[in-house]
Amino acid sequence: MSTDLWLWLAMGAGLLAILYGAVTIRSILSASAGSERMQEIARAIQEGANAYLKRQYTTIAIVGVVIFIVVFFLLGVFAAIGFALGAVLSGLAGFIGMLVSVRANVRTTEAAQQGLAQGLSLAFRSGAVTGMLVVGLALLGVAVYYFVLTAVLGNAPGDRTVIDALVALGFGASLISVFARLGGGIFTKGADVGGDMVGKVEAGIPEDDPRNAATIADNVGDNVGDCAGMAADLFETYAVTVVATMVLASIFFVGGSQVDGMVLPLAIGAVCIVTSIIGTFFVRLGKSKNIMGALYKGFIATAVLSIPAVAAVIWTLVPDGLVRAGGVEIPPMNLFICALAGLGVTGLIVWITEYYTGVEYRPVKSVAKASESGHGTNVIQGLAVSLESTALPALVIIAGIIVTHYFAGLFGIAVATTTMLALAGMVVALDAFGPVTDNAGGIAEMAELEGSVRETTDALDAVGNTTKAVTKGYAIGSAGLGALVLFAAYTEDIRFFAGTAEAGSFFDGVIVDFALSNPYVVVGLLFGGLLPFLFGGMSMMAVGRAAQSVVEEVRRQFREIPGIMERTAKPDYGRAVDILTKAAIREMVVPSLLPVLSPIVLFFVVLLIAGKAAALAAVGAMLLGVIVTGLFVAISMTSGGGAWDNAKKYIEDGHHGGKGSEAHKAAVTGDTVGDPYKDTAGPAVNPMIKITNIVALLLLAVLAGGH
Amino acid sequence: MSTDLWLWLAMGAGLLAILYGAVTIRSILSASAGSERMQEIARAIQEGANAYLKRQYTTIAIVGVVIFIVVFFLLGVFAAIGFALGAVLSGLAGFIGMLVSVRANVRTTEAAQQGLAQGLSLAFRSGAVTGMLVVGLALLGVAVYYFVLTAVLGNAPGDRTVIDALVALGFGASLISVFARLGGGIFTKGADVGGDMVGKVEAGIPEDDPRNAATIADNVGDNVGDCAGMAADLFETYAVTVVATMVLASIFFVGGSQVDGMVLPLAIGAVCIVTSIIGTFFVRLGKSKNIMGALYKGFIATAVLSIPAVAAVIWTLVPDGLVRAGGVEIPPMNLFICALAGLGVTGLIVWITEYYTGVEYRPVKSVAKASESGHGTNVIQGLAVSLESTALPALVIIAGIIVTHYFAGLFGIAVATTTMLALAGMVVALDAFGPVTDNAGGIAEMAELEGSVRETTDALDAVGNTTKAVTKGYAIGSAGLGALVLFAAYTEDIRFFAGTAEAGSFFDGVIVDFALSNPYVVVGLLFGGLLPFLFGGMSMMAVGRAAQSVVEEVRRQFREIPGIMERTAKPDYGRAVDILTKAAIREMVVPSLLPVLSPIVLFFVVLLIAGKAAALAAVGAMLLGVIVTGLFVAISMTSGGGAWDNAKKYIEDGHHGGKGSEAHKAAVTGDTVGDPYKDTAGPAVNPMIKITNIVALLLLAVLAGGH
Repeated sequence: MSTDLWLWLAMGAGLLAILYGAVTIRSILSASAGSERMQEIARAIQEGANAYLKRQYTTIAIVGVVIFIVVFFLLGVFAAIGFALGAVLSGLAGFIGMLVSVRANVRTTEAAQQGLAQGLSLAFRSGAVTGMLVVGLALLGVAVYYFVLTAVLGNAPGDRTVIDALVALGFGASLISVFARLGGGIFTKGADVGGDMVGKVEAGIPEDDPRNAATIADNVGDNVGDCAGMAADLFETYAVTVVATMVLASIFFVGGSQVDGMVLPLAIGAVCIVTSIIGTFFVRLGKSKNIMGALYKGFIATAVLSIPAVAAVIWTLVPDGLVRAGGVEIPPMNLFICALAGLGVTGLIVWITEYYTGVEYRPVKSVAKASESGHGTNVIQGLAVSLESTALPALVIIAGIIVTHYFAGLFGIAVATTTMLALAGMVVALDAFGPVTDNAGGIAEMAELEGSVRETTDALDAVGNTTKAVTKGYAIGSAGLGALVLFAAYTEDIRFFAGTAEAGSFFDGVIVDFALSNPYVVVGLLFGGLLPFLFGGMSMMAVGRAAQSVVEEVRRQFREIPGIMERTAKPDYGRAVDILTKAAIREMVVPSLLPVLSPIVLFFVVLLIAGKAAALAAVGAMLLGVIVTGLFVAISMTSGGGAWDNAKKYIEDGHHGGKGSEAHKAAVTGDTVGDPYKDTAGPAVNPMIKITNIVALLLLAVLAGGH
Repeated sequence: MSTDLWLWLAMGAGLLAILYGAVTIRSILSASAGSERMQEIARAIQEGANAYLKRQYTTIAIVGVVIFIVVFFLLGVFAAIGFALGAVLSGLAGFIGMLVSVRANVRTTEAAQQGLAQGLSLAFRSGAVTGMLVVGLALLGVAVYYFVLTAVLGNAPGDRTVIDALVALGFGASLISVFARLGGGIFTKGADVGGDMVGKVEAGIPEDDPRNAATIADNVGDNVGDCAGMAADLFETYAVTVVATMVLASIFFVGGSQVDGMVLPLAIGAVCIVTSIIGTFFVRLGKSKNIMGALYKGFIATAVLSIPAVAAVIWTLVPDGLVRAGGVEIPPMNLFICALAGLGVTGLIVWITEYYTGVEYRPVKSVAKASESGHGTNVIQGLAVSLESTALPALVIIAGIIVTHYFAGLFGIAVATTTMLALAGMVVALDAFGPVTDNAGGIAEMAELEGSVRETTDALDAVGNTTKAVTKGYAIGSAGLGALVLFAAYTEDIRFFAGTAEAGSFFDGVIVDFALSNPYVVVGLLFGGLLPFLFGGMSMMAVGRAAQSVVEEVRRQFREIPGIMERTAKPDYGRAVDILTKAAIREMVVPSLLPVLSPIVLFFVVLLIAGKAAALAAVGAMLLGVIVTGLFVAISMTSGGGAWDNAKKYIEDGHHGGKGSEAHKAAVTGDTVGDPYKDTAGPAVNPMIKITNIVALLLLAVLAGGH
């Protein structure tokens, strides 16, 4: 099949995903939104989420406009448009996802009154909307912009204008993503930690109790953090991976293979959108009433269907393989093996994450057991689990690198990463299901529905904890696997610029030594290595401060509004949302700029001391340093946090004394610690890594003189 | 001055340090050991510490004998003797240190009855014995063995027999050190956490209360962990750094410069022993009664005196500089600047560590403040501080690498690291002072002396917390700075073996690509990166299990021995010590073998898949990977743990509600979490990194065919 046709199919698949989203939104909105009281609560959540996201995007827009202008002047109009496109689409995916989930939540509560299957169906479809929008918008954005740049404007596919514009698109997506992950994460965990602190611990009222002024904020947080923030993150991961694979193809391959290689990731994305949509119809509660099983059915169906679909792409698009500059060829079978390796890595990471965060296995049980001897031992065991949980995923990624490189070199790693992320539609669907059910439970509690409804939503929510951890492991795992791809893009860019440099220009005669014995490589590794730690520390502190402001506000309301505890007066939910909004926006800016500015600062400092080659080596090594520590920091935080959360749930299910026991109190402490770990700092490390990489790539383009 | 003379002076300085130790031990033992009751308690601690260390060393000896035999057959008799020498001397330094500190503790209690100055003097002199033994035995061991291998046996200084034997000496020291740090760490924190869990939290009795069956074990732990374990660790750090510098000198320099360069680290070590001994006499409590100030006076005196002393070494030993193979020369001034940089790094790391762990500064205060809103926020803030605390030390190390490499290349980094560690005698003295005062407080409590004595020992103990954190930051900082030196030894070894390989032998024609674009380099970085996380997780779990066994034993005693709470019956302290001993020995083995076996496993797995060059590249990159994450893991754990501990002390000093308040309870939780962080997992990362490096070096020697 011709390359052009596959490009059209990719654009068509993007539209299909958006169409799926539109149809599903209609069907969700047609469901009953429940009683007046329920709708009132849902409205409060909607208004809060809307208000927060508008403010967040306004703030990001200010930073974005500044960067847009900088990109415009340094790299030209197409890069600037790419940047804007990536930023707007990423924001859009998150925003629409949020709009749906704040409407699906109350409908899920209503559906849960009819039964578990109905509740699951509604919540999952809402998640699927977000999932399909993320991959649909990302694929459409990249494919259309590539089409415009090449077919419409007539640039050669491998032209620097095309490459820089696509990389800038990735930059736009990354920028939104780090802000959205962090801002949303600070908001949601500030509300959660702060609310629990006063509500559960001080006032002794249950979670989501309407007497707690932070409850609405907590529910808003689920939507702006776990839904919109996560969607922006996965949009970014998807877009950057596809772009990086295209850049690599443009560098590695010659003749017809160049354009074939560039369209390959788009085509893989296209067919996997179709398999993901089919997969969503497999999510059905069986007789066993096993929710996780129902979700896995959808995931496995997608993965299994993707195998022949990807095979079809490879053997029709590149039936004769891909030809490299030196004349070496990668046969289609080898590309297919790499794609399978990508699926294998995904499956293994899902399985390992479930082991570390599921209530059936040793890690969560050991944290629950340690809670018996107190707060301290709960936290020690949780930290131990969080540290240990990094080893197996790292080994899987190592195996992935070895296998794929063996069969198809660096491009093999890129194909594996692309295939891994091609399943993002389904993975995001599983994840975005979580905040909807979490909200549904909160609404049931606040509307004081009968206990059975809450039991149904709780059962859905517990599964959501694991699926959330799975997505994060998946996102960071793909970053680990993709690290070499981005680094390769960096080194090949330097080689290209040095090869084409005019006499006297920056890259003229530059030869960079990336060997580990070069001290500037070690400097770069260490400097990159410190970023995830510093970033993690800053974002944990931000959550602490945001939570503190909530604690003070809730305490103030208990004190100054008489009758809250007796339910004769209502707390002022809006004020809590407002305070948190301000806190989250204020706190997100500095840590988000850390990865944007770090490569630039490192480059110019080393340039001054030791010259061009040293500066380029240090920045290159920094890209790997940030992955080497970032991978472990992110996995330890997300898996550890999931283990703490589910250890609490395990105790609440009646083990080790159950709810209200001393062990439960200790487990609540662990859960509180795990909250910013798994929902703020940990997941934000992934976009942080990407943005560092992309800024470095753009820096090279700027140094080469832009366009 | 001639090179031979400096070698004799190094041996003399080693003897001088040991002589200082012997004289000081006599003067300590001549002090009064207090009342019969105090002596009885001290005896129980002595017996426990003795029993534990004997068992620990017996277990290590079994592993050691196996490795001795392996080394003997693979690398020959001189390597095997070197291994045994390093192992025995490292064990000896720890053992004697422990013997002194278990006698100094009760004498410090007695001296504290007379006043703060007397208590400080006794405790510090006891610490100084350990400090001087560590550097004295290490310098003597390396210098004498070098002398025997070259002058007596007639090998050329750069001969592989000499190099392998010295590296094996480092291996022996590292092996003891990782076991001793980990075993001692598990023992001491198992007792501490377990004892606090039941005593403070469940039974509501204060720390060190004689009714708690774990109190003696807790005091034993201070001696076997914080004293003996730490001494073995610093012995290893010192020995390995000196050896690595000598190896590098043997590779880099030619003619007379080779032997000059090899003796240089020994000569620097020699003069700094003298300045450290002089420095100990500056430790005197001034009128301000500032204990930290008194200790710093000693440290600063040593550092300042070391500047001219090191200058004297450089300008007499290498007045014409050092000549490299290519004819390039490093002038003495450049070497001196590198030495100054080493002192600068030490000073800055001490200062940063104090900032992050001292009660006067923002980090500790912020953890104390966060305790007001509960256990969860205390832990969140503590973790945030622990993550953040890594950034500045990493920047200092980065600056150190850049500056020293600029002035004298890789050997400049080695000189800086050597000079940094030359102050180890003084640094260890400050550290080993901690467990003595901790014990002294415990004895005062158990002997029910009047409150003023406890106040005096508490004041000394609080300072001990900071000095302990400082030593750990210093040790891991030197490892970070020294990473490139060990990596350089590895790469130069490969180059040497490949250059001298016979046709058909392993290294024949091997060229290793250490560039970051080699996927096996990335594999090695990731694999090395996972080790500190996995090792940290394993050791935290080990502490959890050991603590659990103590909790059960203490609970059992409260239950089965009536009258303990009423003080009419005594708990069975010996049984608690015995249970912990078994637990610690059992738990230390597997994690300790992780760094020993990892390079070997990685090497052979990659060898099978991708051949020699890939396997050598992966192992080399692993050496840097283990540093890149290990540096951050270790610093975050030791600084974070120190911050938690001192936040508790800050609250106990009457802030945020003081002792018994809710904030205090939360701070106790943080302290409990910080315990295994700062005293088990964190400090053990340093020997873990070293052992990985040394095993890799020995692996090369074995592959080259041994001798």
